[in-house]
Amino acid sequence: MEGPLAGLSFAAKDIFDVAGHVTGGGNPDWKAAQAPAGRTAWAVKVLNEAGAAMIGKTITDEITRGIFGENAHYGTPVNPRAPGRVPGGSSSGSASAVAGGLADFALGSDTGGSVRVPASFCGLYGLRPTHGRISLEGVLPQSASFDTVGWFARDIEIFVRAGAVLLQSDMAAERPRRLVIAEDAFEIADRAVAEALGPIAEMAASLIGGSDTERLSLTGLADWRAHQWRLQNREAWETVRDWIDRENPRFAFDVSERYVSAAAITDAETEASRAVQADAAGRMEAMLDGGTVVCLPTTASPAPPVRERHSTRNELRPRNSALTCIAGFSGLPQISLPLAEAEGLPVGFSLIGARGADEMLIAFAREMENAAKGQGRGAA
Amino acid sequence: MEGPLAGLSFAAKDIFDVAGHVTGGGNPDWKAAQAPAGRTAWAVKVLNEAGAAMIGKTITDEITRGIFGENAHYGTPVNPRAPGRVPGGSSSGSASAVAGGLADFALGSDTGGSVRVPASFCGLYGLRPTHGRISLEGVLPQSASFDTVGWFARDIEIFVRAGAVLLQSDMAAERPRRLVIAEDAFEIADRAVAEALGPIAEMAASLIGGSDTERLSLTGLADWRAHQWRLQNREAWETVRDWIDRENPRFAFDVSERYVSAAAITDAETEASRAVQADAAGRMEAMLDGGTVVCLPTTASPAPPVRERHSTRNELRPRNSALTCIAGFSGLPQISLPLAEAEGLPVGFSLIGARGADEMLIAFAREMENAAKGQGRGAA
Repeated sequence: MEGPLAGLSFAAKDIFDVAGHVTGGGNPDWKAAQAPAGRTAWAVKVLNEAGAAMIGKTITDEITRGIFGENAHYGTPVNPRAPGRVPGGSSSGSASAVAGGLADFALGSDTGGSVRVPASFCGLYGLRPTHGRISLEGVLPQSASFDTVGWFARDIEIFVRAGAVLLQSDMAAERPRRLVIAEDAFEIADRAVAEALGPIAEMAASLIGGSDTERLSLTGLADWRAHQWRLQNREAWETVRDWIDRENPRFAFDVSERYVSAAAITDAETEASRAVQADAAGRMEAMLDGGTVVCLPTTASPAPPVRERHSTRNELRPRNSALTCIAGFSGLPQISLPLAEAEGLPVGFSLIGARGADEMLIAFAREMENAAKGQGRGAA
Repeated sequence: MEGPLAGLSFAAKDIFDVAGHVTGGGNPDWKAAQAPAGRTAWAVKVLNEAGAAMIGKTITDEITRGIFGENAHYGTPVNPRAPGRVPGGSSSGSASAVAGGLADFALGSDTGGSVRVPASFCGLYGLRPTHGRISLEGVLPQSASFDTVGWFARDIEIFVRAGAVLLQSDMAAERPRRLVIAEDAFEIADRAVAEALGPIAEMAASLIGGSDTERLSLTGLADWRAHQWRLQNREAWETVRDWIDRENPRFAFDVSERYVSAAAITDAETEASRAVQADAAGRMEAMLDGGTVVCLPTTASPAPPVRERHSTRNELRPRNSALTCIAGFSGLPQISLPLAEAEGLPVGFSLIGARGADEMLIAFAREMENAAKGQGRGAA
């Protein structure tokens, strides 16, 4: 093949349609109810046309509902950077394949953190783009207000090349003019994570020429999280409720638990959460205007061990979601950079930019990677 | 083998332990977490010792949580008496095996209707005994306040012989002295069911020498059902919550849905329901004193078609439970007799007696079977 991605291999989360193949969605009862896809997802098509070779589909959390990457039906992909720990999800197999060197890059999706969390846990570059920036055509939906197509790579240059195709962009970008350190986001993270990311934030600040420390949410990130989660969960339920009613499918208990709670969300509650969303988006827009980027921990902790108790997961999940909700709630792009470790495990450093600042985030990530290499810190 | 059951074969629901074998409980994740049973369940042991030959284990609804007999993991046993329709559950495979002639009788369990409902749907004799009458040793528990061991047979004589062993009884019994027709129970049933059972109730009345029509519940059977269900569901959750927290197992959606709602039941709600239970039990005890039996439809309808929508099941389920809750709530014995059909499908006629009146119910069922044979109506 010729083209800008010639010679590169990629994998795609099993929610991307490939003509002639069934899209499994991480759930055997979903898979059994599907016909082979009639055409190939837009993102897969443009990558193929750019010369990249698709080598396979990858495991996803059931119907993309999870951020830890444990699939009760198909198993948990290994985390090559943190053996015995989860890869993160729901784009678990894509992150695992790239971190393990099976593919040069991989497609995932990010609704509530499903690219950013596995990027953090597996030590990869990963982007959640501006909402609406990359076509979702041929991708199994979860929650239309929040769904995005993202991708992973180990190598920043490959990450940029794939991005140029997926964003349909020449990747020209201005540099950030101001750095905001999100104080309330850093407070949510484990102390070891905050300490590991501190020097990375300092490096970003020195590249930009200073930083401001601000609190993103006046009502608290836990509040934003609750409202973002309610909107996402309700839409996710609407997406599958007819299928669930028809098939009474099998899910791991925690997946059903989310749908059961979603089914109880009222229209009035949804409306209230939409108002909070509009307020949060307005606040973030004002903060990010004029070339500002916000930095924060991608996840509250490094990857937790596999097979922990459901109740232990339920303690960690909302802390991660309080971080991932920020960009998701406001439709903003966020990149996770694999420049740090906490307790010997990868943990992502994130930058959020204004709507459409995807290229700025990627270009600045490359600048940081090069600066980090100069400090002996670069990605593995 | 010698003994009172020599020459008879039986099957047991896969919640009865058999030494050296894993008890599967209808859920693959439960099964995977179990070691082979160390000893054989009491009920299986006494049947074996009485000369009956156990021919196998049978499918159950997951962890006994269901009354329709559809298991998303292992499939739905056929209903030999109603092709294309569910067998009823949770003792689905036991009822199916007996109705299909694969075994002479079979063991099931009944917590919220799991012997009575499949007996009705498959055209079998089935007994829920007095609570505590038959040992639950070696049986996977669901809800200790309501769990019972029951059994099925096509043939009333075989039903009696198995009962003598399971009840450890010479089966001597007085005849009922009074028949109460449960008006509120008949009102819940489909019109076709009530009409099909009317002549059976008349036959019972003529054998006893008359009948009274009464309402069982002053607050309504739907109210009893709600409180019985709350107590059962809460106990069922306590039984498995640690396993669910540890394993995050896979269930069909409707099974998880019940556990999720159970987890939200408060101690205060439980206490309120216990008070209603005491009141209902006292009322039933007074009514049944001195040799009274109550007759009612076992189920609100004949077996519904397989693979109906979850929402359709959710309309029928509480109507059936409003009938099965009566004996369950009060710990009373109830026998279902296969003496009628509605729209060409079996539908059970039930008798409830006082605590310990198991033998009276069985003996009167035999008398009714013989009377029905005289009318050309006997069991298939």
